[in-house]
Amino acid sequence: MIRGVLLDLAGVIYDGDHALPGAIDAVGRLHQEGLKLRFVTNTTRSTKQKLLTRLAKLGLDISTDELFTPGQAARDWLTAHESSPVLVVHPNLAQEFDGLPAREKRAVVVGDAGNAFDYTHLNRAFRALIDGAELIALAKNRTFKDEDGRLSLDAGAFVTALEYASGKTATVLGKPSPDFFAAALSSMDCPLEDAVMVGDDAEADVAGALRAGLAEALLVRTGKYREGDETRFEPPPTTTVADLAAAADWILAQR
Amino acid sequence: MIRGVLLDLAGVIYDGDHALPGAIDAVGRLHQEGLKLRFVTNTTRSTKQKLLTRLAKLGLDISTDELFTPGQAARDWLTAHESSPVLVVHPNLAQEFDGLPAREKRAVVVGDAGNAFDYTHLNRAFRALIDGAELIALAKNRTFKDEDGRLSLDAGAFVTALEYASGKTATVLGKPSPDFFAAALSSMDCPLEDAVMVGDDAEADVAGALRAGLAEALLVRTGKYREGDETRFEPPPTTTVADLAAAADWILAQR
Repeated sequence: MIRGVLLDLAGVIYDGDHALPGAIDAVGRLHQEGLKLRFVTNTTRSTKQKLLTRLAKLGLDISTDELFTPGQAARDWLTAHESSPVLVVHPNLAQEFDGLPAREKRAVVVGDAGNAFDYTHLNRAFRALIDGAELIALAKNRTFKDEDGRLSLDAGAFVTALEYASGKTATVLGKPSPDFFAAALSSMDCPLEDAVMVGDDAEADVAGALRAGLAEALLVRTGKYREGDETRFEPPPTTTVADLAAAADWILAQR
Repeated sequence: MIRGVLLDLAGVIYDGDHALPGAIDAVGRLHQEGLKLRFVTNTTRSTKQKLLTRLAKLGLDISTDELFTPGQAARDWLTAHESSPVLVVHPNLAQEFDGLPAREKRAVVVGDAGNAFDYTHLNRAFRALIDGAELIALAKNRTFKDEDGRLSLDAGAFVTALEYASGKTATVLGKPSPDFFAAALSSMDCPLEDAVMVGDDAEADVAGALRAGLAEALLVRTGKYREGDETRFEPPPTTTVADLAAAADWILAQR
């Protein structure tokens, strides 16, 4: 019996600066039917607060407790591990790390830095790693759908570059980290077996959720979806549907 | 019976802008004893011609036929495969590719681009790859010894980034490509079993040469060598010596 739904944001709820057709309405229908919802995103180009403001403008009013971001998870990780960050992140995300106390231990934190992925930043991060810093990946996504509608290099490529050169393995905090899915489900007291994930990334969202133990995961053919994605990663999606509206239909039909 | 010697350049012959102690003299001694020599470098921050000029200033006068560079190998590859390059290389190397005819087929060519490793260049290369271009790595070295004496990110990190995001596997043209070693040996009619390699990179120079079938490979404790390198990669070096002078002593003692 499905009781909880985890929803990706970019490519599922919105695309660029507009909500996807039927998406906001689908969220409303799921809510109305008594399902618990959490939003789990690997977007790392803005702070959690800015993302909430952006969602409100699109007509999606959610509270800070309903949204799970890798930036927040990284801040929590740094506090728990008493470490100071060496940031390779987008300028819009940097303030998520303001006010952390200075520590001797260091951790390189890599997000989708956009144009801040330059040699100077990456080499500084590499040198911190060989001097003993941990490597923290906000996400390891290969690509994202860029503003021009085409795929662009995402953080995962640069995380892999630093792993290759330093010999270290990154701790991934966002999807597909089982801890990330588990934190979102735990916040709504929903066990893995009663949960479904809906996403446009067949690897991080769908295969990731199923590997983390969720009962079901739906792939939508919006956002970064490309033909053939449903068979590209293991495990494959429970089913593949046109968009979030169709995903809501499928979920509600199961009840 | 050793008849041919392959020598790495940076970290073996020179370091920064000066020849290493005893290195030029060691090359002279190997020559005098009738050994055939070729210089095989993964340096991709300058054209072959500029590198020859630089070596001459350090007191090493060699001909264009004695020097093997990945840039030259890439130019040959592009000609053989009737492809035009999408360059991610250092500005000083770019002119190595001048004058190639325009072709429909494209190949992304990645060298040690230094500050030209920025998001714009890397994302342009990524998009060419998903549009069908081949991926050519001049080298896949993890690190190099930078001008300040510390290790810095080398081309391999960025090649790995592009492989991860595009799902393609790079064709590596420089060391440890067996074809690269073979081309240098073939140019002096020296079979693999009569050849020795001397380098400071335990992975690309030493393990690479042994995997390519060379009889022996010596690791020198100069350049990018770090303690423990002799046991870090398989196969391990035939022996590890202080520098090129000691390598020449070892080689001459075998005869």
